[in-house]
Amino acid sequence: MSGFAAVDVIRAKRDGGVLSDAQIDWVVDAYTRGLVADEQMAALAMAILLRGMSAQEIARWTAAMIASGERLDLSPVSRPTVDKHSTGGVGDKITLPLTPLVAACGAAVPQLSGRGLGHTGGTLDKLESVPGWRAALSNVEFIAQLRDVGAVICAAGEGLAPADRKLYALRDVTGTVEAIPLIASSIMSKKIAEGTGALVLDVKVGTGAFMKNVDDARELARTMVELGGAHGVRTVALLTDMSTPLGLTIGNAVEVTESVEVLAGGGPADVVELTLALAREMLAAAGLPDADPAAALRDGRAMDSWRRMIRAQGGDPDAPLPTAPEVEVVRAESDGFVAAIDAYAMGVAAWRLGAGRARKEDPVSIPAGVVLHKRPGDPVRAGDPLYELRAEDAGRIPAALADAARAVTVAPAAPERKPLVIERVG
Amino acid sequence: MSGFAAVDVIRAKRDGGVLSDAQIDWVVDAYTRGLVADEQMAALAMAILLRGMSAQEIARWTAAMIASGERLDLSPVSRPTVDKHSTGGVGDKITLPLTPLVAACGAAVPQLSGRGLGHTGGTLDKLESVPGWRAALSNVEFIAQLRDVGAVICAAGEGLAPADRKLYALRDVTGTVEAIPLIASSIMSKKIAEGTGALVLDVKVGTGAFMKNVDDARELARTMVELGGAHGVRTVALLTDMSTPLGLTIGNAVEVTESVEVLAGGGPADVVELTLALAREMLAAAGLPDADPAAALRDGRAMDSWRRMIRAQGGDPDAPLPTAPEVEVVRAESDGFVAAIDAYAMGVAAWRLGAGRARKEDPVSIPAGVVLHKRPGDPVRAGDPLYELRAEDAGRIPAALADAARAVTVAPAAPERKPLVIERVG
Repeated sequence: MSGFAAVDVIRAKRDGGVLSDAQIDWVVDAYTRGLVADEQMAALAMAILLRGMSAQEIARWTAAMIASGERLDLSPVSRPTVDKHSTGGVGDKITLPLTPLVAACGAAVPQLSGRGLGHTGGTLDKLESVPGWRAALSNVEFIAQLRDVGAVICAAGEGLAPADRKLYALRDVTGTVEAIPLIASSIMSKKIAEGTGALVLDVKVGTGAFMKNVDDARELARTMVELGGAHGVRTVALLTDMSTPLGLTIGNAVEVTESVEVLAGGGPADVVELTLALAREMLAAAGLPDADPAAALRDGRAMDSWRRMIRAQGGDPDAPLPTAPEVEVVRAESDGFVAAIDAYAMGVAAWRLGAGRARKEDPVSIPAGVVLHKRPGDPVRAGDPLYELRAEDAGRIPAALADAARAVTVAPAAPERKPLVIERVG
Repeated sequence: MSGFAAVDVIRAKRDGGVLSDAQIDWVVDAYTRGLVADEQMAALAMAILLRGMSAQEIARWTAAMIASGERLDLSPVSRPTVDKHSTGGVGDKITLPLTPLVAACGAAVPQLSGRGLGHTGGTLDKLESVPGWRAALSNVEFIAQLRDVGAVICAAGEGLAPADRKLYALRDVTGTVEAIPLIASSIMSKKIAEGTGALVLDVKVGTGAFMKNVDDARELARTMVELGGAHGVRTVALLTDMSTPLGLTIGNAVEVTESVEVLAGGGPADVVELTLALAREMLAAAGLPDADPAAALRDGRAMDSWRRMIRAQGGDPDAPLPTAPEVEVVRAESDGFVAAIDAYAMGVAAWRLGAGRARKEDPVSIPAGVVLHKRPGDPVRAGDPLYELRAEDAGRIPAALADAARAVTVAPAAPERKPLVIERVG
């Protein structure tokens, strides 16, 4: 027999062994080309999830996924390039204000984004709320916009890490999403292949995130920072809190509206804080430590950058966004303080309203979602509006109401304030 | 959502949880009907292998696999029914003499057998060496032969435990064969569905077996004995040694010839010993503890039963069996004793000669295989024949020679004798 039998590779990992470089190269390539079957890769993914991988295995697996496709050359972009990736949270619209803001400060941001699945939304779904805006760019268009505008948010092309695209879809249906080696290699293979010079990772921790505790998040962050360094991409990570939704909106059009408020110099304090923290890390990683992103929000440069970015992809930044015909306002039943708004439960509520999708092929509702009127720590009086649920179809509201009610706790005393940025891994 | 999502079931087992009866019933049924995909069941099988299952989960899984198809009613057979199952070994032709022998002593043996895969042979492949013999019987033919002859060895019908058939094929390609809960439920679902009243299990232990150590074999045996009891099938198990091939032949036609020698009152001592030990257990389990199987071998009743069984399925018990054109005799290089003949390595040698198959759809060679001239403990002189390799194609011999050479050790002193029957689990 030549090559490796898939069963031998599966058994080696199943029994706690370390896969050789040659085994990893073979199995990733053979899976991409259809020579290793989905059921074989599913068994291997479960074995990886339960047995783990060494740093060397993760590095090789990532390299093999990069090698499955093309690696973009961003050298025609004269500015330093820096990208950001979030591991996904509820109300996490940070990419929307952050990308044009960092571009306004002198870097170029090649942001290849994805769509939402389950309780976390997707950046492309949100931007598609803007009339005319299109997510798909050719590589030539991508590099030209990066050079001319400095800010691009678009879908990853088919040619980047096709092994990852196939494996990601498989993991989603086989209960193997939550494997740190597979999460890290999936994120980093795409980011390295897109050609960015530097990368800032926003690793979410809390009920609304994949990583429920700081130790797991730190391990994931360190793994990715090392992978970036090994491939010549300056990489730092912030661990940030995702026990509470970010900002006051969860959905698609509602998150674009909130992002535009931030770009106009307003917006919720937590969204502004995280946008600026990530912008400073990105600008430092890009070799622009003296840039002042807070000033760029205040003086309109960030908004100008947003408008150019939206227009470059066919969008009309002045068009009104669709609104939902069905709105249910939920009010406080007693006086007190908002003690907690659980990110996961509120994410599920938004998903039930139509803002998210259960299957890859499902559409999402543009105007559906949740708008919070209060944040944790805010005082409330009985009868005050706590939040509103928005949907295109009234039939979606009752189930969402139950999840939203579970999410929000009103208590006699204000909760302790938790820091938004928990830790930096550099 | 109604029902269960496959991912939730996979995650529950992945995280070390116990699956509920409803989850097991749903996932087995949905997999059989194609609603749960192969890649999802592969991930679940790997999680079961690495996380294990409780006795209650195994019992329910087995019941769900039985419920996926029909359960035969053997009440038209007036005699007590008793079957035997071996977990598979090298040179394990015991079913061939055992089935007609037990029938000759008054029980009826409904032996549904399989084909070989990898280094262990299959009973149906061996019997197909007999000109005219056919493995496929309808349920009506099966029950009629059981009533009229008392002995049937045939392929399991499509209607018995279809969930197991589908899952077995999946496990084979996904490195999930070696999970005790899945082995036990696979074997027992088929045996319970075939309708036998009693069952004797030959659980093999050693290099040539799935179970490499006695503790694993004992756990498997106990699991199966409990499953049988829970479904009203009197079940006992013998743990037997499979570090050395059984008898002097490994292959297809060569094993039939050796079996006929046993039925004629001769044959190798170990094959006779194990055949009689299993026959006594089967007859006791069938309520015939006073039957004398040794006498039935001596006085020709077992041979008559064999001839009737072969003829009932179209075979000619007097036809000569095909012989191999290529024969390579390997001789001892030094004086001494045969210290060991490794079952696994010799099984692989026979497989390389063509006696076995690598993929389900491959054919097997009827005359190919290994014939031993010496057994462990036998004295040898330099130049004595140790074994011969037989093949239809001379090109298959060199690779097989290497495995066979690894299998056989000649040493200055005779090895300690190991018992063939290690333990009884009742």
